Amino acid sequence: MNGAIEAIEWVPEGTVTSPAGFLAGATYAGLKTYGQNKLDLGVLVSERPSSVAGVFTTNVIRSASVVLSQLRVASGSARAVVVNSGCANACVGDQGMKDAVETTALAAIQLGLPSREVLFCSTGIIGVELPMALIRGGLPKVQLSSGGGHGLARAMMTTDTHPKEVAVTFYLGDKKVTLGGVCKGSGMIHPNMATMLCLLATDAAVDPQFLQRALKTSVDLSFNQVTVDGDTSTNDSLILLANGVAGNPPLTADSPDADTFQIALNNVCVFLARELAGDGEGATKLITVMVEGAASVLDARLAARVVAGSALVRTAVHGNDPNWGRVLAALGRSGAQVEERKVALFVNQICIMEGGAPIPFFKEAVVAAMNTPEVVFRLSLGLGDGEASAWSCDLTEEYVTINSAYTT
Amino acid sequence: MNGAIEAIEWVPEGTVTSPAGFLAGATYAGLKTYGQNKLDLGVLVSERPSSVAGVFTTNVIRSASVVLSQLRVASGSARAVVVNSGCANACVGDQGMKDAVETTALAAIQLGLPSREVLFCSTGIIGVELPMALIRGGLPKVQLSSGGGHGLARAMMTTDTHPKEVAVTFYLGDKKVTLGGVCKGSGMIHPNMATMLCLLATDAAVDPQFLQRALKTSVDLSFNQVTVDGDTSTNDSLILLANGVAGNPPLTADSPDADTFQIALNNVCVFLARELAGDGEGATKLITVMVEGAASVLDARLAARVVAGSALVRTAVHGNDPNWGRVLAALGRSGAQVEERKVALFVNQICIMEGGAPIPFFKEAVVAAMNTPEVVFRLSLGLGDGEASAWSCDLTEEYVTINSAYTT
Repeated sequence: MNGAIEAIEWVPEGTVTSPAGFLAGATYAGLKTYGQNKLDLGVLVSERPSSVAGVFTTNVIRSASVVLSQLRVASGSARAVVVNSGCANACVGDQGMKDAVETTALAAIQLGLPSREVLFCSTGIIGVELPMALIRGGLPKVQLSSGGGHGLARAMMTTDTHPKEVAVTFYLGDKKVTLGGVCKGSGMIHPNMATMLCLLATDAAVDPQFLQRALKTSVDLSFNQVTVDGDTSTNDSLILLANGVAGNPPLTADSPDADTFQIALNNVCVFLARELAGDGEGATKLITVMVEGAASVLDARLAARVVAGSALVRTAVHGNDPNWGRVLAALGRSGAQVEERKVALFVNQICIMEGGAPIPFFKEAVVAAMNTPEVVFRLSLGLGDGEASAWSCDLTEEYVTINSAYTT
Repeated sequence: MNGAIEAIEWVPEGTVTSPAGFLAGATYAGLKTYGQNKLDLGVLVSERPSSVAGVFTTNVIRSASVVLSQLRVASGSARAVVVNSGCANACVGDQGMKDAVETTALAAIQLGLPSREVLFCSTGIIGVELPMALIRGGLPKVQLSSGGGHGLARAMMTTDTHPKEVAVTFYLGDKKVTLGGVCKGSGMIHPNMATMLCLLATDAAVDPQFLQRALKTSVDLSFNQVTVDGDTSTNDSLILLANGVAGNPPLTADSPDADTFQIALNNVCVFLARELAGDGEGATKLITVMVEGAASVLDARLAARVVAGSALVRTAVHGNDPNWGRVLAALGRSGAQVEERKVALFVNQICIMEGGAPIPFFKEAVVAAMNTPEVVFRLSLGLGDGEASAWSCDLTEEYVTINSAYTT
């Protein structure tokens, strides 16, 4: 579904600055008062003019950082992104936009760019104004380097337990190009978008319209298929910069290599989406739900998302409990077309129901088979060709503990 | 919203057999292997012919008990309901309907009724066939009595911590009538319907068409506004019998007393819905979300439900954490019309945001104010006249513990 990956090579320790012509850096400005990792303010910048594409939260209540970035992304051109963690810059009235404008203006001066080329992503607590004195003091301390993606990945983190980074290389014609990214989760994770910030960069030259279309396609089968707790954040932002340093002729939807780029982008997005899901707050396991034989791709996506998001499925996985009735109940309420008598369910390759009825199985064997870092439910609906996957994590006591005392 | 309640009296220790002409009983048939309370098979019967109305799960995958009951309720007439806990009679192939038909036939013989007048409600584990030998052995042990509602309320329970019962009296013309009910939760609780079984009975005479319409109206503002974990069960069933023993002229939509009946029904349903929400699995607090000033009633209901159902709001309540940003984030993604600058939020009567921005408050004071058995969020949207409430409970470590090891 993500396309063949033969032509794609994974870059060891790849990150968002693996593509040529991108620099990044991060500092501790004092915004983040929790977590082990104290970097909380970062910058990504392209050394050359770049195309830009973006996908943002669908929440009606959104951070001023999102509003400003979305406005600027619409031009199709941007060079830099400022990222902060610790404060969402959301629900703070007019001050939110004033602070977003000032932050990007300060970064623009520092980088020698027009303000309109600078975007802003914020994550953290809602309803608290950005401590601008800390931002003003912190920005000049950010040291940019071509290895700076790793620090940037850490500066985005809130309750994430580890940074999430990836890069791949592939060929567009005879030009080797690189695509890399960093992202963060890990609470308020749900489709449209997952609660997340994600910065992607490539040294390919890509027409902005195709870049936007390709990004939306990838997001729909990756990040929008991740659910942790059903809460869509006010701040979800995914930004993709393409600076053309690799020297390929600018890609458009009609280019012979358009599919190659799309497949690479799909793979990077799915990789990061799985990273997000597996590092959901309190998670001990990644849950993958694969739906096949659905009446349509949209039905398959819907069914996979609803099953992956079910609190009862997620708690059952936490207990290695083959309580497949909960999977069926979630499937049945998903809104996807389902005929009970045609449904088959596999848990980590073991078929435990077929034709809508359970197959006798040794429960202890399935419990043992579920005792793995990734639990895969494969649902075969027997209705058509629609296929999709969705990702989540187990729901644990630790999730509750983390979220009962986030601000207190 | 539920209507004036001046004319309604609450019956002390009221239950589903408080109305005249209803008998019930329960026994331990051996179906339930968990929980402290061991009653697991019960019967409710009207001594006289009754009108019937019903509302059932919208899940495509549904118990054979639901399918059979829904079919029979459509006739508008029924006299008895068999209830079992411990086994959902769902996802068991053709055997499910065979067992449902046999169970109701056995009860019908015992009660001297035609099978078509007997309904069936099941709750418990999905994918396990009903142990019919236990049902066959158990049914004759059920002793019917006019005080039997209390036992029936216990026989429905799964992980509920206490039985849920209520009855009210009111006048239709000069006839005093009684309306009572029993219900059970407490996991897989979500609108359309909440996962629940609920049996209601009244000695009023009510035309079946009006009975069905009135029941749907009440359910939409009560049970369908309850959410515990977002999972809609395969077995949700709500059945209302009206046997006319009180002697009033049969109520129709045009009767002068139709509103009185509707208000009484609303109050009984809201009472039981709140009971369900407050006794959600692992709950320590009831959460009430009141939305006012919405663009429409449907918007108000939607917004209230989404906020009440937010995992992040529910964990925050568990920690007495005034993390109101999560309430706003949930409101923003609800799909209801929202203008951030017009929103005000009260937590247990304390105004903590207005005009879309926070009001400075002493956090410790709000933390203390939230340390109550019921936490009320009141959201004023400033857009129109739409009002609604929704109910949930806090999300606790205990919820996860209960659901990680339900079958194992």
